Amino acid sequence: MRRIAVDAMGGENAPQAIVEAVLKAKKELPETEFILFGDEAKLKELVGSDRERVQIVPTTEVIQDEDEPVKAMRTKKDSSMVVAANWVKKGQADALLSLGNTGALLVCGIFIVGRIKGVERPGLMPTMPVQNSDDGFNIIDVGANAESKPEYLLQWAEMASYYAEKVRGVKNPRVALLNNGAEFDKGDALHKEVYQLLKDSNLNFIGNIEGHELLTGKADVVATDGFTGNAVLKSIEGSASVIIHLLKDSLMSNGLKVKLGALMAKPAFKEVASRFDTAKYGGAVLMGLKSPVVKQHGRADARGIYYAIKQVDKMLAENLIEAFKEEFSK
Amino acid sequence: MRRIAVDAMGGENAPQAIVEAVLKAKKELPETEFILFGDEAKLKELVGSDRERVQIVPTTEVIQDEDEPVKAMRTKKDSSMVVAANWVKKGQADALLSLGNTGALLVCGIFIVGRIKGVERPGLMPTMPVQNSDDGFNIIDVGANAESKPEYLLQWAEMASYYAEKVRGVKNPRVALLNNGAEFDKGDALHKEVYQLLKDSNLNFIGNIEGHELLTGKADVVATDGFTGNAVLKSIEGSASVIIHLLKDSLMSNGLKVKLGALMAKPAFKEVASRFDTAKYGGAVLMGLKSPVVKQHGRADARGIYYAIKQVDKMLAENLIEAFKEEFSK
Repeated sequence: MRRIAVDAMGGENAPQAIVEAVLKAKKELPETEFILFGDEAKLKELVGSDRERVQIVPTTEVIQDEDEPVKAMRTKKDSSMVVAANWVKKGQADALLSLGNTGALLVCGIFIVGRIKGVERPGLMPTMPVQNSDDGFNIIDVGANAESKPEYLLQWAEMASYYAEKVRGVKNPRVALLNNGAEFDKGDALHKEVYQLLKDSNLNFIGNIEGHELLTGKADVVATDGFTGNAVLKSIEGSASVIIHLLKDSLMSNGLKVKLGALMAKPAFKEVASRFDTAKYGGAVLMGLKSPVVKQHGRADARGIYYAIKQVDKMLAENLIEAFKEEFSK
Repeated sequence: MRRIAVDAMGGENAPQAIVEAVLKAKKELPETEFILFGDEAKLKELVGSDRERVQIVPTTEVIQDEDEPVKAMRTKKDSSMVVAANWVKKGQADALLSLGNTGALLVCGIFIVGRIKGVERPGLMPTMPVQNSDDGFNIIDVGANAESKPEYLLQWAEMASYYAEKVRGVKNPRVALLNNGAEFDKGDALHKEVYQLLKDSNLNFIGNIEGHELLTGKADVVATDGFTGNAVLKSIEGSASVIIHLLKDSLMSNGLKVKLGALMAKPAFKEVASRFDTAKYGGAVLMGLKSPVVKQHGRADARGIYYAIKQVDKMLAENLIEAFKEEFSK
């Protein structure tokens, strides 16, 4: 039986959407048990009578988005996130899913769940959309580390490639390095060194990728330092959001004919939205920890949380952590 | 009389669109003389009889986009770009505009035109759009430097702030530092140090800005290291391009009703496109050189080139370079 610890109090739609997602996923995952951490009364009410393979662990505190991560971990000892992380640490659960404060989850992951021996630094890895398929790509690290060293990026690329293959089913994933040009000698000292490390590795390294190529589907895995990765991820999300909002506003504020046209063209908008629907990829994985720790967007709805549960379950079913432990203990 | 050296052979629409733009701008800029470098016969034909304040300097070579920058500068000595840069160096022209190979223009700018004494490193600075106004913002450096030091970013911010005020007419420009979080202690060692430098400067420093806030109009000037700036700029351009292409495809491939709807909704699409029309901001300036050197997109049409000419002319009219020379010789 696989046991997933679910921080039921994190995110905008907690705990309703979280419980809804758990109950839906449970039906499809007969080998999986769910341990919900949070407000006992609320969770009991939401779960109802369907308590098979669903355990509720009462906690009294919640880490808020505005809480300072390290302080929150240290002082909110009875928070749903910290207690859930401790269950994973003690081996009472096999993985952790949260929609809460990203910084706090990173800190709980690193300091409570703990790093795999031999992994230099954990890296945060979301799956992002590409324009021409539903496959998406993984990018790592997007901000767990402000400072990065060449070896970190090599390890991140190795873990992400393995993830892409086992969890996303990509055969022989194409790995690229985010850089400021196509040629092998591009970049600062860090990225030049990483290029060589990746070239000399067993990965299917296809060379450098530039910012404008990320969404084209050129690579299945993109390695980047945590500072650049963070800026790039947020820039892409921000640009998409700005364009979509502007377009919506313009369609609604240019008179009846435009509005009617927008209504008629709706299938096209839906098609584009579905290509950029990242909920189906699950959450961002903090790679390199002793157990899977996944952060789903705080704004995720039950559908997004359901996919994140499936993702965590798949990571457990494929024994990713065991493979990493073996690889990096060499 | 202000004298602008125009590399008439760079970009996809050269030399036609370039000559067209020069002839249009000339009418509005009676104090400005244009020196066109390129294929003599073609340029003579395109310019026609309207030769007042338009000089043609024949050159026999053209630097191509695929040319290696340093090698191109050294070997294509009679290229339109290199000869134009030499005219600026010798004081026969006051500024350089090109649509050609960006790397080659950077190299020509740095090695031929030359750096202002006291400026540590030139930085490349485009003007980008924001969602809520036509003002846009400047971001520097977007890739002239793979490695950046704290003092570079401070100087770039100072030059960009001055540019925003004098050329774009922004009063007391809000300067922000691109970083991986809002708090003052965010970032790697480089960005922590730049934060303090900006805080202690005379600039109107409003703190850190994150990737998703860039297009919101929160800042008039964004300072960033050349590696991150390059990745972010390309990511934003790439995301916008992917979304727009997907939308166009979807609108055209979902049947007649959707197509008709798209036609009816056209004013809204036009409104959004006009907000993201960066041609009106001119080109990217290589800041810190002894004369203004501006790179306009290789794909720019006559309208985009016209705006770049106006931009260069404004930089000359406002004596930006003299101000920088004074500032950094202190």
